[in-house]
Amino acid sequence: MEMKKQILSLKEQVLDDSKIDLDLHKYQNIIVAGMGGSGIAGMILSDLYDGLPVISVTGYQLPAFAGKSSLVIVISYSGNTEEAVSCFTQAKEKGCDSLVITSGGKLSGLSAKVIGIPKNLQPRSAIGYMLMPLLNSFLNLTPEDRKAISSRVSLVFDREPEIRAIAHRIVSERRIPVIIGSGESRSVALRWKTQFNENSKIFAYSTYLPETNHNDTVWMASSNQYPYEVLAFESTDKKINKRIELTQKLTGNKFTIIRTEGNAVERVFSLIAYGDLLSYYVAVEQNIDPEDVSVLVRLKKELA
Amino acid sequence: MEMKKQILSLKEQVLDDSKIDLDLHKYQNIIVAGMGGSGIAGMILSDLYDGLPVISVTGYQLPAFAGKSSLVIVISYSGNTEEAVSCFTQAKEKGCDSLVITSGGKLSGLSAKVIGIPKNLQPRSAIGYMLMPLLNSFLNLTPEDRKAISSRVSLVFDREPEIRAIAHRIVSERRIPVIIGSGESRSVALRWKTQFNENSKIFAYSTYLPETNHNDTVWMASSNQYPYEVLAFESTDKKINKRIELTQKLTGNKFTIIRTEGNAVERVFSLIAYGDLLSYYVAVEQNIDPEDVSVLVRLKKELA
Repeated sequence: MEMKKQILSLKEQVLDDSKIDLDLHKYQNIIVAGMGGSGIAGMILSDLYDGLPVISVTGYQLPAFAGKSSLVIVISYSGNTEEAVSCFTQAKEKGCDSLVITSGGKLSGLSAKVIGIPKNLQPRSAIGYMLMPLLNSFLNLTPEDRKAISSRVSLVFDREPEIRAIAHRIVSERRIPVIIGSGESRSVALRWKTQFNENSKIFAYSTYLPETNHNDTVWMASSNQYPYEVLAFESTDKKINKRIELTQKLTGNKFTIIRTEGNAVERVFSLIAYGDLLSYYVAVEQNIDPEDVSVLVRLKKELA
Repeated sequence: MEMKKQILSLKEQVLDDSKIDLDLHKYQNIIVAGMGGSGIAGMILSDLYDGLPVISVTGYQLPAFAGKSSLVIVISYSGNTEEAVSCFTQAKEKGCDSLVITSGGKLSGLSAKVIGIPKNLQPRSAIGYMLMPLLNSFLNLTPEDRKAISSRVSLVFDREPEIRAIAHRIVSERRIPVIIGSGESRSVALRWKTQFNENSKIFAYSTYLPETNHNDTVWMASSNQYPYEVLAFESTDKKINKRIELTQKLTGNKFTIIRTEGNAVERVFSLIAYGDLLSYYVAVEQNIDPEDVSVLVRLKKELA
C-alpha cells in the first residue's frame, strides 16, 4: 500500500475493537516491551493510563523486578525483532503473565496469547492496530469512543493545506523540527520525532513541558543556532499554555502551535494523524520516498 | 564558587556517605519527582537499580497509582521548584512514605525527612550530592566503593587535553552534539545533552542503543544534515559495541567513542565527569559564561 494510504488508514485502524482479557488486580506493574514504531505504543499507553506503573522496555533485558506480579506485553509488528523476542523469552522464564501484539513472525509461534494485526504495512504505520488493543482494555473504550476518535482523525486529515504549509517551511528553510509535548502528548512528541526521522529522513528533536523549561530554554534563548521550527502542542492545562507563551517571549521565538480537540485520547490520535501527514509531506517536499528505511533493513541483516 | 571548581568538586561529592533508612519490602514502586538537574538523579538511579520499578516524575502530578505502597523521593536542589513542591504535597495527601533531598527552601520546612545537601552550587553541579544518598541506599555502597568512584572521576578530569580537543572541534565546526548511551549510561547521555544546553548554551540531542537503530539511524544515513558530532559511550556489552560499529559503517559516519573503566557505577560517574568538563570547555571555546542560566531565572519569576 502506498505510504499516504497507510497513513490515512489510521481512521479505520482506530475502529479496531480487539481487547485483552485483563485482571488488573493481579498485577503490581505492566511492562511493555518493544522497539521503535512498535514500542511507542507502550509509551503512549503510559501517558494515558496511570492506574499502575507502565514501564517501557526498549532493549533486550527485562528489569530484575519482572515476575509473577508483572504483566508483560510484547509488541513487535514483524514478530521477529530480536530485542522483543529476547524479552518474551525472559518473561516466560521469570513466570510473568505475557501476551504478544504482532502481525506474525517468530513471536506469533512462541506465544499462546497473541493479538494478531494485519500484515503489509510499515510497522510505524500500524500504530492504530498496536494501540487500540491496549486502550480498549486499559481505558475500557466503547464503540462510540472509537467512532469519535475516528471522526477527529478524519478532521485532522482535512487540514492538509495547513500541514503542507508547515512542511514547505521546514524543507525550504532547512529547519530542524523541535517538538514540544506535555502530559498525555509527551510520547506523541517523540512519535513525531521518529516519524520525521523515518518518513522524512531528517534530524528532529522532541521534548516536553514543563521539563523543557529546565534546560532547553537556555539554548533557545541563544541566537547562535541552526534554523529550527518549534511545533508546540496546545494543552488543556492553562499552566502549560502559559509556559508555551512565556518561553516564546523570553527566547524571542515564534512557535507553531498545534491545536487539536476532544478528550485526551482523541487529542492523542489527532496529533498522531497530524504528525504522520506532516512527516509525509516533508518527504514529498524533498522528493524522497517516505516509505524507504532500507538502512534499517541492512543493519538487521548485518546483525543477524 | 567558579564553575570549573564546582564541576571538579564531583570527586569530593561522591565520597558523601548520606544514606536513606530504607525498608524496600514495604514498597511496590519508587517514585522520584524532580526537574532538570535535580530530576536526572532519579533517572540515573533507575538505570542502575531495577529491584523495583523506579518511576521518574518530571511535572506537577504524581500518577494515580501513587499510594501506600509507593516511596516518593522528591529532589529539588533549591527546595522551591514548584513542580517538586506540588508532588511533595500530593504524596502527603495520598499517604505515601516520602522524603526530600534538598539544600533548603520550602521543601526543607515541609518535610520531616530531609537529606540536606550543601548550598551555593548550581543545581546541575550538585549531581554527586543528589545521587549519592540514592546509590548508597539502593546499591549499598561502601566507603571503599565511594573511594573507587572518586579515583575514577579524578582520572577522567586528568584527560583534559582529549576533552578540550573535542570541545574545540564542536565549536570551530559548529557541530551539534549527538550523544548515544545504552544500558546504565542511558540517562547519562541525557545528562550530557542538558549540560550542553545549560553550560554551553547549544542545542544537543541524546539517544540510546539499541533504540537508536530503530529510527535515528535513518537520518544519520542521509547526507543532507547540519554538521554533528556523535559521542558514543563504549559499552561492556559486545552486542551494543557491535551496533556502534555497524551504525558508523552503514551511515558513513565516524563517531567519537567515549571510553571509561570500572564497574557500572564507576563508569556512570566517569561519564558524568567527562560530559561536565566537555560542556564547560564548549562554553570556554565560545567565550561565554558556563554558569549563566539567567533566562531560566527570569522564566521562574514570570511564572510565579
